[in-house]
Amino acid sequence: MVAAESTDVFDVIVVGGGPAGENVADRVVRGGLTAALVEGHLLGGECSYYACMPSKALLRPVELLAEARHVPGLPAGPLDVAAVLARRDEAVAGYRDDGQVRWVERVPATLVRGHGRLAGPRRVQVGARTLTARHAVVVAVGSDPALPDIPGLAEAVPWTSRDATAVRHVPRRLAVLGGGVVACEMAQALHALGAEETILLVRGDRLLDATEPFAGELVAASLRGGGIEIRFGVSVRRVHRPSPGGPVTLRLDDGGELTADELLVATGRTPRTGDLGLSTVGLPDGGYLPVDDSMRVTTVDGGWLYAVGDANGRNLLTHMGKYQARVCGDAIAARARGGPDDVPALRATADGLGAPQVIFTTPQVCAVGLTERQAREQGLPVRTVEYDLGRVAGAYLLGDGYTGRAKAVVDTRRRVLLGVTFVGPGVAELLHSATIAVVGEVTLDRLWHAVPAFPTVSEVWLRLLEAYGL
Amino acid sequence: MVAAESTDVFDVIVVGGGPAGENVADRVVRGGLTAALVEGHLLGGECSYYACMPSKALLRPVELLAEARHVPGLPAGPLDVAAVLARRDEAVAGYRDDGQVRWVERVPATLVRGHGRLAGPRRVQVGARTLTARHAVVVAVGSDPALPDIPGLAEAVPWTSRDATAVRHVPRRLAVLGGGVVACEMAQALHALGAEETILLVRGDRLLDATEPFAGELVAASLRGGGIEIRFGVSVRRVHRPSPGGPVTLRLDDGGELTADELLVATGRTPRTGDLGLSTVGLPDGGYLPVDDSMRVTTVDGGWLYAVGDANGRNLLTHMGKYQARVCGDAIAARARGGPDDVPALRATADGLGAPQVIFTTPQVCAVGLTERQAREQGLPVRTVEYDLGRVAGAYLLGDGYTGRAKAVVDTRRRVLLGVTFVGPGVAELLHSATIAVVGEVTLDRLWHAVPAFPTVSEVWLRLLEAYGL
Repeated sequence: MVAAESTDVFDVIVVGGGPAGENVADRVVRGGLTAALVEGHLLGGECSYYACMPSKALLRPVELLAEARHVPGLPAGPLDVAAVLARRDEAVAGYRDDGQVRWVERVPATLVRGHGRLAGPRRVQVGARTLTARHAVVVAVGSDPALPDIPGLAEAVPWTSRDATAVRHVPRRLAVLGGGVVACEMAQALHALGAEETILLVRGDRLLDATEPFAGELVAASLRGGGIEIRFGVSVRRVHRPSPGGPVTLRLDDGGELTADELLVATGRTPRTGDLGLSTVGLPDGGYLPVDDSMRVTTVDGGWLYAVGDANGRNLLTHMGKYQARVCGDAIAARARGGPDDVPALRATADGLGAPQVIFTTPQVCAVGLTERQAREQGLPVRTVEYDLGRVAGAYLLGDGYTGRAKAVVDTRRRVLLGVTFVGPGVAELLHSATIAVVGEVTLDRLWHAVPAFPTVSEVWLRLLEAYGL
Repeated sequence: MVAAESTDVFDVIVVGGGPAGENVADRVVRGGLTAALVEGHLLGGECSYYACMPSKALLRPVELLAEARHVPGLPAGPLDVAAVLARRDEAVAGYRDDGQVRWVERVPATLVRGHGRLAGPRRVQVGARTLTARHAVVVAVGSDPALPDIPGLAEAVPWTSRDATAVRHVPRRLAVLGGGVVACEMAQALHALGAEETILLVRGDRLLDATEPFAGELVAASLRGGGIEIRFGVSVRRVHRPSPGGPVTLRLDDGGELTADELLVATGRTPRTGDLGLSTVGLPDGGYLPVDDSMRVTTVDGGWLYAVGDANGRNLLTHMGKYQARVCGDAIAARARGGPDDVPALRATADGLGAPQVIFTTPQVCAVGLTERQAREQGLPVRTVEYDLGRVAGAYLLGDGYTGRAKAVVDTRRRVLLGVTFVGPGVAELLHSATIAVVGEVTLDRLWHAVPAFPTVSEVWLRLLEAYGL
């Protein structure tokens, strides 16, 4: 009994084995601690099986085909849907986590399979086992798609991002509820793969409304140009699906009705904190866990509880969850050895600057830092410059009729960039130049000497600086 | 007579209307001066008609086809060569410079057609006209391919980069002399377009010898994998072409002989300063013009002579020529109005850091700053880290069997990057992140907070920092 109990004591217990949880375990072990990683489903999390990996595997051939159609001389023809789906299956490792298990073993961390729940301070219950943490418990449980409260919706069992990325049979008529990243990406992918009648129902008046307005406009134009219908300012009053797997009918607030073979709901996410035993440590069940810049939960005494990734609501993006995880793991290790914990490496300062994000639509949308609106709302001294990416020689060389746009938001006092947005085909790798400029606070005067290579799309940097007046 | 003479007086005379010359004219006019632009051939220069633009127009479909072959589900098939050549023709505007003429008119600058030669200080002779410069003459004449001194070579009238980029009939058997950028890029393009038997004859023991060794190795493996033969450590003793346009035979120093339908010589360049009237101002004819960081020629009294682009030999790259041109034009304007000329914007400091360059082979090679060897030769405190790009999730998503590599050269004392090299498909736009990091001297500790978006190839930044030990 004593022996059994001692094996369930770890320096750190991480609840949730997605990318954020895995990285916490990795960093604390590198820092000399022991770690348990609790996961009830697949190690690797949403990102590996139901989000980033499969969605990008589906979108890559769509993107390449669109690029090829703009470059004369390349073979034309339709996508081989079965081959695309097969590569998606490969990208998600056939929904098996063997590879991730081996990775955790190499860390080494102890994998505990099962649903983890807090059972009082420093304790985590997994089935019949009670794990105890010497130093910290880290919540890395991620989030679930949120279903809006529409009569009949839950009963209709609509698709969420999980079903869309795991698609086996592409519905011919697809209705998509939402206008954000998942809605745009999956509408484009599924339409290219056979959803001939795809319609986006958007409550607001634009797509991708967390980004600069022109981003949503360019994506909307591209989706519509490809044959996808978009309706703005429309809400669903009621959903009706008479038989499981059969057609679904939506009653709209404009009185109209719409029937589709499948309905994809992509209207946001909700943290998986409802069944986490938070009440055993005096916290409300559900909701985001508020944290400081080291990811320590601020509403619990004793400093033993942390939350990383979607669970803290700071940035619902895999790479930011991993970033938080590195900071968090290092901070836990530093505190465990009594070292200084107030150094910049142990503070997730980039979280507050505006996380970099790539939206893998065609055109791609990349943004980092603040939008103009955000910067003005913060009362910063702002000037913006924009440039038509299609006028850059490097963009022309990528293909005929290249359409895209770049925008920089400049702090006129400090002469640094507050935010940058690029929209256009093939700009995904361009984003990191902006991320380094924003996070590194490189002044415009120094950026003037960072010469973009000709002929690349990156030359837009020169045009933006010229437009600013350097 | 007096009126005619007065129209030939300008604040600044720019000799050579390539990208560098055009940018000098643009910047001095923005600075309030008048400018004449002297061009004997096509406005827009080598880059627009015989180098960057046509070569990339030829390489883009080759690159896309290679990418498509690694993504299951895309249509397969050969390139339509005629369509590729037609787009190349479009990219060079049919070898007409009307568009560039309109651009110069809008600057506005005065275009003087004809070969320009110095005729004493501040004077430029163009045919019967003598132009006089109040403030500065700027040499922007560019460079020509250099033919090595091999018996029979000149008489064989081999192809240079100009002929290769302007190709109309692709030779079936192509021999390429050289192992640098032009040799690699054009061998790959022409092989894909029909030069079934393509052979590279390289004097040294590797390709692209100005870059990190692994870059040349990866490109060599790719060329060979595609069916191109490469012979290292071989020199041509003699060239023989019995009839113009007929087969050409090369006698090699290993005793072997080789017959091809065409021979492309890509063994370097030489500045076009031989017929520039340099002797009229006391300078030797030919050779690079030595300049200071404001592009002022250091070997002439009076400070009126400048040289930008290939003519000064600092960096034979279009974007660096344009960069020098901006600095030069602004410096001339500042000096003309008696303003301060010792500010950072008027010094081409990036020239000395190691110019960014993209080589558009498949895989692409991108580098900025110093190679490890250069850094060690300068006696800097160096540590390097490398990472296999194929292990980055974002690279896997670009295609099966992604092969590439990244290397960072770190100054261990200042904890900044001295140089970065990326080799892999589709990394061209990734380079500018490194350029900003190197030129902006962003510390590793700050780069740690510049989070690359998942899943992009840019995530290699995280891996490099982890490999370094952050």
